[in-house]
Amino acid sequence: MDRIAGAVTYPEGFQAAGVRAGIKEKGEDIALIYSESPASAAGVFTTNVVKAAPVLVSKARLPRGTARAVVANSGNANACMGEQGMKDALEMASAAAERLNVDEQDVLVASTGIIGHSMPMKKVIDGITHAVNVMSHDGGATAACAIMTTDTRPKEESIEILLDGVKVRIGGMAKGSGMICPNVATMLAFITTDAVIAPDVLQYCLKSSAEVSFNCLTVDGDTSTNDSVIMLANGMAGNAMIEPGTRNWDIFSEALNVIAISLAKQIADDGEGATRSIEITVKGAESFGEARQIAKTIANSPLVKTAMFGSDPNWGRILAAAGRAGVDFDPNAVNLYFDGSPLVQRGEPTEFDEAAMHELLRGRRVKVLLEVGLGTGKATVWTCDFSYEYVRINAEYHT
Amino acid sequence: MDRIAGAVTYPEGFQAAGVRAGIKEKGEDIALIYSESPASAAGVFTTNVVKAAPVLVSKARLPRGTARAVVANSGNANACMGEQGMKDALEMASAAAERLNVDEQDVLVASTGIIGHSMPMKKVIDGITHAVNVMSHDGGATAACAIMTTDTRPKEESIEILLDGVKVRIGGMAKGSGMICPNVATMLAFITTDAVIAPDVLQYCLKSSAEVSFNCLTVDGDTSTNDSVIMLANGMAGNAMIEPGTRNWDIFSEALNVIAISLAKQIADDGEGATRSIEITVKGAESFGEARQIAKTIANSPLVKTAMFGSDPNWGRILAAAGRAGVDFDPNAVNLYFDGSPLVQRGEPTEFDEAAMHELLRGRRVKVLLEVGLGTGKATVWTCDFSYEYVRINAEYHT
Repeated sequence: MDRIAGAVTYPEGFQAAGVRAGIKEKGEDIALIYSESPASAAGVFTTNVVKAAPVLVSKARLPRGTARAVVANSGNANACMGEQGMKDALEMASAAAERLNVDEQDVLVASTGIIGHSMPMKKVIDGITHAVNVMSHDGGATAACAIMTTDTRPKEESIEILLDGVKVRIGGMAKGSGMICPNVATMLAFITTDAVIAPDVLQYCLKSSAEVSFNCLTVDGDTSTNDSVIMLANGMAGNAMIEPGTRNWDIFSEALNVIAISLAKQIADDGEGATRSIEITVKGAESFGEARQIAKTIANSPLVKTAMFGSDPNWGRILAAAGRAGVDFDPNAVNLYFDGSPLVQRGEPTEFDEAAMHELLRGRRVKVLLEVGLGTGKATVWTCDFSYEYVRINAEYHT
Repeated sequence: MDRIAGAVTYPEGFQAAGVRAGIKEKGEDIALIYSESPASAAGVFTTNVVKAAPVLVSKARLPRGTARAVVANSGNANACMGEQGMKDALEMASAAAERLNVDEQDVLVASTGIIGHSMPMKKVIDGITHAVNVMSHDGGATAACAIMTTDTRPKEESIEILLDGVKVRIGGMAKGSGMICPNVATMLAFITTDAVIAPDVLQYCLKSSAEVSFNCLTVDGDTSTNDSVIMLANGMAGNAMIEPGTRNWDIFSEALNVIAISLAKQIADDGEGATRSIEITVKGAESFGEARQIAKTIANSPLVKTAMFGSDPNWGRILAAAGRAGVDFDPNAVNLYFDGSPLVQRGEPTEFDEAAMHELLRGRRVKVLLEVGLGTGKATVWTCDFSYEYVRINAEYHT
């Protein structure tokens, strides 16, 4: 695996650009990804009932199964803007389509940033024109910057796999560091591949991959109105079509998981005000879903997150959070470990060395493992701590 | 309604005491409530699957329907302590029963404080002996202090009602300000009444009352291992038995709601690090349950809570939290008000005066009203903001 800049233009036949249109205060704010040939398209979107206009537009277009481009902006979420919001999202797509000379239904759209404000459409359209003019095979890195809001760094990942000796590449970029900036921001991820794969198979792979990556990610438990993961597969690698249940399908799915999990972890690492990256694994649940439910409840507990900020090996808060996750388990059967050291065995505290554990928790990364002793269900969730800085970032902004 | 100190000894025939046993660093830490005659007993307890030993003991005894006393301690939660924890909880009850000369099955028990530490049983038993010696009709106020942990003040409420001309009194005390202190603390509430009421009817009334009060309360979304609400009705008022569905039942239920809601609001007001008390009402849901689910999701959102700390009229975060509550509604039909002033109408922002709204949010109390336009379901939830102080209290403690 290579981690390179410009991941979305790493697969064959993708061009991209990130340009400044002046929507946010500084930096690039229009990102464009273009496939030189028709691509299979897939997407997963926010489950929030309050959905931004670009989410509604992209969701409506995906059932066609193909796309040629994605246009995204940062600085304005185009959410809660009624009819005008829909009109603006459609216009973003049609402006890009016209300049790229593709069918407007083949352009997907995404937005992130402030909620409840009109899109500055003149700037947006000028930015799209500019992006189409400058897009290139090296444009991935600027595109990754152009989707950032409160992110402190771009998030990219790429991988190359061999399918029957044919090189296939996958690249992805993402943004997200909390659902703010300044009202409602977003987790956005865009993944490209030159694999030959049918749209329905791609959709299945992407959805499965999102379940163990983006859906295992939480910064503050707040699901945005704009969350979108979009994937394009343009077939330019020339591999034999990836069919479900084959060995190539396994290789491709595994590689896609690598990309998606890497992007998800990069988002958790860059959580607002984060001083610790926390990986929480729950083993021994009755299913993946129940394991993830327990892990997410722990990950979202303000008490667990503040204890982590204070480097406090507070196993009581972790057990108590697990206990309210809505999953029945025997509290006398649980084991808890921090970075492999046992804190709780069969429901009771061990005689652990508190000073050593405190020291261990001062590190940048902490791995929490909880065994609940029911079955074989296992899940890992990524999150970060709650610091003074989280409160500052989220309290000091004024609408 | 009178708010008096010593609420649990306000009804006829109840004695109480709060004494220092030396379990926590300072202050009273053993509370005793004693009924001079056999009382109908009712209780509702934490839904956390990790339940402290005293919760298991009290839950097991309540189906008998009667009790004579409640003994509680602060400073040690007696949670996650296995067999020894059960033995200690049973011994607390039997020590009190012996000294009060009542059946040990008639003593209920509760604990709050540190998790995963052995109960200092010699101190506890000496404290119980002392409490039995000093208990009195004026002891309610010290009992209310003896259950405090991180609470900054005791929480009490009392009321007198007339049932067919007969005076009936209800009094209650509670503690709770976050699930900490230092590992896992608790919401505890004890309510006494001299009403004549059968145990099953009392249980029904208490459970209904808890639904609209303690179950509508959230400081940080963390449900403790020890949460307990226990009620004793000793019949000394001499009213005609309160039968379900009668006018007296309505009056009694309404009065009990007043007590329980007042105690719940006092807990929210005293939330860890709280600078704002926030009352969130959701109207127009399809049921009370769905309305409460939306209101609680808003109340638990760190983004909403930090915005409130910053006096920021951040309606976008409220709508986004509502949207992820798991209740389907039309985002284009919602209205949102702060203290009666509209911020959102039919899903879109109004032209509200931001400076005025910011000023309004600088007050100690904020009322948020969200109308979702589906039906007649309505619920109110009480919470507080997230401040630097919340992070400090919960991060700086070291186990």
